[in-house]
Formats: sequence, C-alpha cells, structure tokens
Amino acid sequence: MSGVGGYGGARVLVTGGLGFIGSTLAIELVRSGAQVIVLDALIPQHGGQLYNVAPVRDRITVELADMRDAQALSRCVRGVDFVFHLAGQVSHGDSMRDPHLDLAVNCVSTMNLVESCRQHNPSARLLYTSTRQVYGKPRSLPVTEAHPTLPIDVNGINKLAAEYYHLLYDRTYGLRSVVLRLTNTYGPRQHIQSDRQGFIGILIRRALRGEALQLFGTGEQVRDFNYVDDVVAAILRAAQTPECYGQVWNLGAPRHHSLLEFAALLSELCNVSYTTVPFPDDRRIIDIGDYYGDYSAFARATGWHPRIDLPQGLASTIASYREHKDHYWA
Amino acid sequence: MSGVGGYGGARVLVTGGLGFIGSTLAIELVRSGAQVIVLDALIPQHGGQLYNVAPVRDRITVELADMRDAQALSRCVRGVDFVFHLAGQVSHGDSMRDPHLDLAVNCVSTMNLVESCRQHNPSARLLYTSTRQVYGKPRSLPVTEAHPTLPIDVNGINKLAAEYYHLLYDRTYGLRSVVLRLTNTYGPRQHIQSDRQGFIGILIRRALRGEALQLFGTGEQVRDFNYVDDVVAAILRAAQTPECYGQVWNLGAPRHHSLLEFAALLSELCNVSYTTVPFPDDRRIIDIGDYYGDYSAFARATGWHPRIDLPQGLASTIASYREHKDHYWA
Repeated sequence: MSGVGGYGGARVLVTGGLGFIGSTLAIELVRSGAQVIVLDALIPQHGGQLYNVAPVRDRITVELADMRDAQALSRCVRGVDFVFHLAGQVSHGDSMRDPHLDLAVNCVSTMNLVESCRQHNPSARLLYTSTRQVYGKPRSLPVTEAHPTLPIDVNGINKLAAEYYHLLYDRTYGLRSVVLRLTNTYGPRQHIQSDRQGFIGILIRRALRGEALQLFGTGEQVRDFNYVDDVVAAILRAAQTPECYGQVWNLGAPRHHSLLEFAALLSELCNVSYTTVPFPDDRRIIDIGDYYGDYSAFARATGWHPRIDLPQGLASTIASYREHKDHYWA
Repeated sequence: MSGVGGYGGARVLVTGGLGFIGSTLAIELVRSGAQVIVLDALIPQHGGQLYNVAPVRDRITVELADMRDAQALSRCVRGVDFVFHLAGQVSHGDSMRDPHLDLAVNCVSTMNLVESCRQHNPSARLLYTSTRQVYGKPRSLPVTEAHPTLPIDVNGINKLAAEYYHLLYDRTYGLRSVVLRLTNTYGPRQHIQSDRQGFIGILIRRALRGEALQLFGTGEQVRDFNYVDDVVAAILRAAQTPECYGQVWNLGAPRHHSLLEFAALLSELCNVSYTTVPFPDDRRIIDIGDYYGDYSAFARATGWHPRIDLPQGLASTIASYREHKDHYWA
C-alpha cells in the first residue's frame, strides 16, 4: 500500500481495531505516522484478537471496552482527528439467531458513537464501514448507490440504520461522516476459525486444512472481491476527501467472479477438490443471488482503484495464514 | 366509519392503544365486535391516557406494560389474530434530544414484537403504523412508495428500521405484516397538551385557548391531512387485505393544504388570528418542506378513500376537544 498521505501525526481512533479490517487499518495508520487508539470489546465470536495487531502492539493504545458503554466511548473520542468505526457484528446468520445482540452492537453502539462525537469532539471526521448487504437482492447489476435498499437480514437493517445515523449527524450537526459500503473483503487476519464471517472464511479454512470445498447452490453466483489492503486504502482516502462527507459510497472490483472461480483458485493453491451442495434453509433465505457493485463514483471522487486482483490476493492470503497458522486455523 | 367487516369475534392486540390513533382504533374494533387487548406503557409525554378509551373501558383488557420488556409482550401476543403496532415515540424533536430513548422505544420494542410473534404466535397478522418522515425532504411530489428514503431525524431512521423488521419477518418467517406510512393525522384524542406531537396539536391547542397562531417559515409549506377515523379505516382494511402483506403503503388525501390554509380554517372555527414567524434553528434542521403522498396504490389494493375533508374534520375535532376540555387542554 502506498500513496496515502496526511496521517502523519494524526490522532486516530479505530473501533473494532482488533478485528480483521480494523487491525489492518491500524497497522497501516501506524506506518503512516499516526497516533493510534484501538477500541475493541473482544466480544467472543466477533473475530477480534490481540494477535492481529502484533506488528504494532508497542506503538498503539489498546482500549478494551464495549461501545454499548457510552462512558468508555466518550473517553476515547476526545481529542482525536479521525474516528474509523469498524466495530460491529457482521454475521448475517448470527443476526437472525440473535437479533437483539445485533441491534445492540450495530445500532446502539453507533448511536453512542455519533452522540459522543457530537458532545465531545464535533470536529472529528468519521468513517463508517457498512455493507452491500443493505441493498438486499439486487434488482439490477452493477449495483449503484442509488439502488433501493431492502435488507434481507437483521444485520443489513441495523447496518443501514447505523449508516443513517452517520449521515444525519453530518447533515444536522456538522460532524463530517463518510459511509463506505464494503463488498466481500478477504485477506490476512480475517476470523476464519468459525463459520461466522461468511463463505470466504469457511472456504479458506477448509482449503488450508486440505478439506474438500462445498459451495451452496449452483456455485455460479457472482461476487466482487476486495483484498483487505485495497479496502484499507479506500478507507484512508475517503476520510481525507471532503467531497465524500455526508454520502454513502460503494467499494467494488474491476472484475467479478463466480464462487466456482473462487473455489477453483483456492483449490489450485491448496490442492483440494470442490463441489456444489444444495442451500441449507437458513442460508437460502438470506442469500442475495448475484452481486457486484459499481464503485465508479468513489473512484472519481478519490482516485481509488483496487490494485490486487483475486489470484494475487488469494495467494498472499494463503501464504499469510500458513505463516500464522497457530493464531487463525490450527 | 362503516364498511369494515371481519373483526367480529377476532382477538386483537393494539400496542399504544391508549394513544391518539391506538385508542380510536381500539374503540372501533370493540364496535366491530372484536375482543380487544390494549397494551400501553403510558410513558410520560408520549401522549397516551386511560381517558382515551373511556367509551369502551369496561369492554377491553388494558395491559400496562412496556414493550421493551419482552416477557410482558409475549404474554400479550399469544392467541391473538391481529396485532396493530402503534406504540412508539413520535416526536421528531424529542428524537433528536434523546436519540437513545427513541431507539429503544421504536427499534428495540419492535424487534421484541416481531420476535415474540415469531416465537409465540407466527400466524398472527401484524400491522405497523410508520410515517412519511422516512422519506425525508421529498425530491418529487406526490411522494410514492418508491421514493428514496433519507430520514432527516432520528425518529425517521428508527421508524424505518422498524418497518424493515416487519418486512423481513414477513419474507423470512411467514409472519404476515403490513406497513402503513401515515402522513399528518389529526382528530379527537390527540395529545395536544405539550408541543411534542407536531404543529397540528400546537395550533389546535392555541386556537382552543383563544391564542394567536404562529406558523414557522412562510406558512406556504403544503401537507396532506388525514382525519383519524379515515386512518383507522385504512388500518382495518389493510390488515385484512392479503395483497397488502409484506409491503409498505402510503396513506394520503385527495387534496393538500398549505399551513396557512390550515391556520385559516382553525382561525375561523375558534376566532383567533394567525401570523408567520421565522423557523427556530432546532425546527428548521428537521423541516421537510412540502409534502404530499401518493396513496393510489393503497386505494387500488383496498378500496380505501378518505371520507372526511379538512374543514369537516377540523370542525369535528374542535367540537370534541371543547366537549372533553378537562382531559386534553385545560
């Protein structure tokens, strides 16, 4: 990653900073010369772990606190220049099994954050990582930001409400907030031990363990994939682009791939077979079919383009997980 | 009100049933022969009062409980045929001053309700009264259900999330849910003692007291007004129209009126003057400008049409408040 300037000396807070994308962001920020506070509740199963920030552990402040606790939050937001809000529950399936937890972690926590910024640090710039899940089943492809939102799981609803809080506080109180709608992000440090973070983590774990890969449905569903370093680059650019404030922006990739193509790449890297199986009921009802997003507006506004294609990114990912096996999939 | 059949012998739950629209609905349901349970937390300032159901007090069950309490809710939903979910915080201004309460009362309570129905009574039919506030400032008029949603206050965001919960549980779990987006409802039993329920209540109270009316801005903003009996008729029809399930529907009126016209009617009824004043800051930021909705889809689906125009409805409203002065504006 390169070309990101302007964070030297900046004071930044990364919520969910021990998670997959949050830790990768925190590490990059430290390399850019920022003073980084990482806030994480380490909620079991949400995927964060201290090991994720091992490369910069002695250069960041780690605040173990739950954002549902407004007091802890207000301590963290005071005096920072940027708040990158990545904390949250991301499992679609879990959001259906425990909708109350999803509501608390995604809505209540986000409300606490924007309120805390309004009260204690209204000049901070906020960036929220949302999800393409807010669109539901696409009516047309590629999906632009103007596509209607009809979430098909509890997580999508709560993430959408959290987006709206950011936009509202930007418009109403002058907090500068950007919302990015991420698509399928993959790469090192993702939580792949359990099945909670979607098919990418499941397939990668099985491939690493030499197990056959199973794809739900025909396997012909297409997705756009972003390597985590590209997502971090997008986050860093968006937060420094005034044109981005008060808006939602899609990320995406120049090429989309079917799940079969994804599995074929993994299969080659790890020498495993793959096959398709019928959708289990609880997956089928929250499946969105084909998806790929139009990120051209964001590219125009920020100059961001993904640099790492899927074959390259998956190779790096597998190499990294092999090197750090004990912490991710042993 | 007439022409509503099919509730004779039905067991129904009305949440927020001591409030303005809820109590009017409960009374009409009793008249239709339904067995009515009214659930209300009587949260101070939310506008409910026992006197609202005085005409049917001895023929309904009143359950004083808070929907944030999932246990109380599960007791109430068991065995009912219909759930009319009208409970909630409706003040736009209050939602900005206490966003956490609004979130709890509108999102958490609604989540409790749909979860409770899924677990204890999945064959119940649900109807949720949402608001045109979810659209934000209209981009085009009249506003159809396909208009983008960009709420401009916390209340609009939380009501929108609550809508989505209903639609999700309909699509995913087979609960049959209808969402109505109400516009400006007026009539007897509205909470007009405080300023919390919008300009209608404020103007009516002032007119009744013989005080001059003040309109914010130019007074030329237009709105569509529904008399409460028409809204109750819409609710009763919608819940019995299978075509309505799983969808959102606008209410509305065949004519729209400027606030100046509204004030002129009140002025004539109560012999008071009216004038315009600049918007206070906290009102201006959540003002939506002109609004009127397209309710033709709902009219086609259900045959519903508003029967009472504004002059007629306002006259009835003022007469009713004069008769029940002690309970509403003394």
